[in-house]
Amino acid sequence: MKSLVFYQGEPGSFSEEAAQVYFRASASLRPCAQFRDVFRLVSLSRHHSGIVPIENTVFGSIHETYDLLLKHPVSVVGELSLRIRLNLLALPGTRLRDVRRIYSQPQALGQCEDFLRRMEGVEVHAFHDTAAAARMIREEKLRGAAAIAGTRAGRRYRLSVLKQGIETNRRNFTRFIVISRSKVIPVKHPKTSLVFATRDTPGALFKALAVFAMRDLNLLKIESRPLIGRPWEYLFYLDVEGSPDDLPLKQALNHLRELSIFIKVLGTYERSASAA
Amino acid sequence: MKSLVFYQGEPGSFSEEAAQVYFRASASLRPCAQFRDVFRLVSLSRHHSGIVPIENTVFGSIHETYDLLLKHPVSVVGELSLRIRLNLLALPGTRLRDVRRIYSQPQALGQCEDFLRRMEGVEVHAFHDTAAAARMIREEKLRGAAAIAGTRAGRRYRLSVLKQGIETNRRNFTRFIVISRSKVIPVKHPKTSLVFATRDTPGALFKALAVFAMRDLNLLKIESRPLIGRPWEYLFYLDVEGSPDDLPLKQALNHLRELSIFIKVLGTYERSASAA
Repeated sequence: MKSLVFYQGEPGSFSEEAAQVYFRASASLRPCAQFRDVFRLVSLSRHHSGIVPIENTVFGSIHETYDLLLKHPVSVVGELSLRIRLNLLALPGTRLRDVRRIYSQPQALGQCEDFLRRMEGVEVHAFHDTAAAARMIREEKLRGAAAIAGTRAGRRYRLSVLKQGIETNRRNFTRFIVISRSKVIPVKHPKTSLVFATRDTPGALFKALAVFAMRDLNLLKIESRPLIGRPWEYLFYLDVEGSPDDLPLKQALNHLRELSIFIKVLGTYERSASAA
Repeated sequence: MKSLVFYQGEPGSFSEEAAQVYFRASASLRPCAQFRDVFRLVSLSRHHSGIVPIENTVFGSIHETYDLLLKHPVSVVGELSLRIRLNLLALPGTRLRDVRRIYSQPQALGQCEDFLRRMEGVEVHAFHDTAAAARMIREEKLRGAAAIAGTRAGRRYRLSVLKQGIETNRRNFTRFIVISRSKVIPVKHPKTSLVFATRDTPGALFKALAVFAMRDLNLLKIESRPLIGRPWEYLFYLDVEGSPDDLPLKQALNHLRELSIFIKVLGTYERSASAA
């Protein structure tokens, strides 16, 4: 059986780029319309993998991905950080002053807010995907229109770059995770991601973190997510150095189970050099 | 001098609704184009206030608001949680099957993804503001078009509700903060928000949280924000019960200063009953 890698988005999207960077030439990539499709397809077979964004330096954690990780029998087996560089792309021969309409994905439009404000009299249209906007301009040969998308989408759909790097925040990185039904045992720089909820008692979070600190395990990410309507209940997202195959983290997780009302280890994987 | 309340967005927006709910009839509300305009105008005079979103249960923390809080000489003086209920609005007489184009703000479109997927053959257009989309439909008398916006925008621009509550996630709340150059001293349920960065040493975060736990101060929010490119550096967002006017929190903050390379207390304010 051929092993496939599913990603959300279109060919030319940042997710496809993340998949190509991570898997090199070894994988057959398959686009999916929705994040949930990626999780469903990866759940079906041990041969397949998926790659989805989990965190962006500008927008923060992608809660939908965490929610899907809680629901599906998959593990995080790898990670990758990708710089999100956005360009204004149009059919060759188009000049910046010819552009009357700009198409892109809503968050990408938001990331280019400063640039768009300077483009007076230009209509801005939301599209479901950055790469899909580039494709539409090529397929429908739209004159006077431009897409905001990555370099890869521009190359794929043979569009010219009217303006490069138009995102407001240059420290714009997205961290992607690789998911699979098969767990991996990373040999170096292991990192473990988990979600847990504590009892509603004072100092509960502090005690939960103590189980790691007492064993000199470094936390790489901690985030409380309020469950509104239940004002004293939270989910916590936590990334910690180490693997549950090593005694300190194994003992820490056992200890955390004593203190939590819910815990799910999302996976242990090699920490990417570029990922925070 | 008349005291003004600045908010980002258009009349009829959720930010205006938050301002009206929080300030009742007592305030003169003024819309601003950008978050940064709200902060700039509030910085100019002790008489004015502003209201801006800081966290959404679906999308998480709004980092732009945190960044602006770090840059401007303003304090958080209040908070309010608002349920974000989205409706499909159109000119009276329009039927659901007549709708060919839908306009809304990018995040609102994202929140209605499931509904939009079922609307086959409908074009979806991004607009900078939910209420502005409703206003355009009224002003340009657009037939065959609908806006996704709140109930208040529908009433203001005399549009009919074609479909109510079309957001995918019903637990969709936005927490707004009230900002001012003048600090307040809350008499009941005080809550303090701060941002800090720790030294890059193992257990640094744990020690930082210990300063609160050792004084029985309850944490209401904790979030690490990676500074990508500097893989071992983080900012932490923290909300804690109490006021620095009371000894335990005052001592905890002094203690935290010993352990931090940077700390800014964003404000102390009355905790809203509905806010997590």
